[in-house]
Amino acid sequence: MPFANEIIKRNNVTILGSGEKTLLLAHGFGCDQNMWRFMLPALTAQYKVVLFDYVGSGHSEIAHYDQVRYSSLEGYAQDVLDICEALDLQDVIFVGHSVSSTIGLIASIQKPNAFSQLIMICPSPCFLNVKPDYMGGFEKSDLEELIDLMDKNYIGWANYLAPLVMGANNSEKLVGELSGSFCSTDPLIAKTFAKATFFSDYRHLLKEAKHPVLIFQSSQDALASTEVGDYMLKQLPEAELQLIKAEGHCLHMTHPDIINQALRAYID
Amino acid sequence: MPFANEIIKRNNVTILGSGEKTLLLAHGFGCDQNMWRFMLPALTAQYKVVLFDYVGSGHSEIAHYDQVRYSSLEGYAQDVLDICEALDLQDVIFVGHSVSSTIGLIASIQKPNAFSQLIMICPSPCFLNVKPDYMGGFEKSDLEELIDLMDKNYIGWANYLAPLVMGANNSEKLVGELSGSFCSTDPLIAKTFAKATFFSDYRHLLKEAKHPVLIFQSSQDALASTEVGDYMLKQLPEAELQLIKAEGHCLHMTHPDIINQALRAYID
Repeated sequence: MPFANEIIKRNNVTILGSGEKTLLLAHGFGCDQNMWRFMLPALTAQYKVVLFDYVGSGHSEIAHYDQVRYSSLEGYAQDVLDICEALDLQDVIFVGHSVSSTIGLIASIQKPNAFSQLIMICPSPCFLNVKPDYMGGFEKSDLEELIDLMDKNYIGWANYLAPLVMGANNSEKLVGELSGSFCSTDPLIAKTFAKATFFSDYRHLLKEAKHPVLIFQSSQDALASTEVGDYMLKQLPEAELQLIKAEGHCLHMTHPDIINQALRAYID
Repeated sequence: MPFANEIIKRNNVTILGSGEKTLLLAHGFGCDQNMWRFMLPALTAQYKVVLFDYVGSGHSEIAHYDQVRYSSLEGYAQDVLDICEALDLQDVIFVGHSVSSTIGLIASIQKPNAFSQLIMICPSPCFLNVKPDYMGGFEKSDLEELIDLMDKNYIGWANYLAPLVMGANNSEKLVGELSGSFCSTDPLIAKTFAKATFFSDYRHLLKEAKHPVLIFQSSQDALASTEVGDYMLKQLPEAELQLIKAEGHCLHMTHPDIINQALRAYID
């Protein structure tokens, strides 16, 4: 069975660069592998770099989309594990943006040998406020309204969310790119991913982490506040947190050089 | 055993683009995967594209170099087959430059299921003149002299061969790049590859080809004359030949648009 090639095409796997260590870069909600491009020149000079699109995102093969599988983050984690298996990846350094940090955490607990370190860019294990003591940042009703807006006015939703995620004061080009990426995703697929992302609570997994974690925390992030980063640091068995003075939730796009430098220092 | 990842690193495998069909691009003697870059923008928009460096070339892992294995083209063909196995490639469209056309032919006869078509850019099954009726273009003594020059004056050899291969009237930049690529290869490894390339005779394999072949023939090629292309066309069971009005032995670098267009028309 041509398993590797099937997964390579299904998840539009890209492999670049050369080096002893392998990095697996996992994009966030409403994004695709293209969002990593600012970090690639530096990374590919030093590491083997694997990129992919989750099924339903980017140039993945939409025929493989499964509404049930991709209704929970475990389904996306299975994409990551499929890629690791297809390429026989071991001791890979997983770099996840936003919700992919949690997806990588799930995958790394399921199959520890495939991973060596987790690097999380603007992560949050739970976007909801859970009383009395966890402030994910959002009331459930707010998020339900946002999801409803996807049905009522998809483009309006994309144009509202993109500047919130990217940081409104960052370049208009990047905000426009993110908005365009949201819009180019099939609305039902985006809504399913959005629900899996924003209504889930994976805080209980933090203590189960089997690998060292580096968190990149944005100082001004509408989706993952510094309180969330501090919470994760406390819960994770072995973690470091680097607070980056920045606006927005996409440090790999707005501050690629700072992230690259810190990432390389951490790995090496 | 992490076979896929090991081969990916050993042969510095790169995977780009997306599409139903997969192309495997194989560089020629003294080159590396970087030489395909002019063709990539068009190809990756339509196909999954796999690139690699033979062990000993480019950014392959030199620790895997084996003097015996790489003394014959069968050793290089095994690199191709290893990559096909590691990635579970089936029905791949093999695109080989120069000696890699023969390497692909060897691999495709050994494991037919992995391949669907062979595309050969400036191929030659035998560079030697074999009396009475085959004119590969070179007397054995001429080639021995050229190989001797590698020992005596490696940089002089590179600077002599590069304009001959690229076509002296093509851009100085490309000639310089090829010369630089020759020079940056370990001399012993280059010499071993050169002997395997220039002293071998694989004409007997042409009749054994199990796949349709498209030959791109340069009208003015110091290494593979139009007589050689005509000979191949006659011997191959199922073949087409496209004669490109050009100078030089590197049509994928000097005439990438023409090659891309004809290649896509042939495949689709």
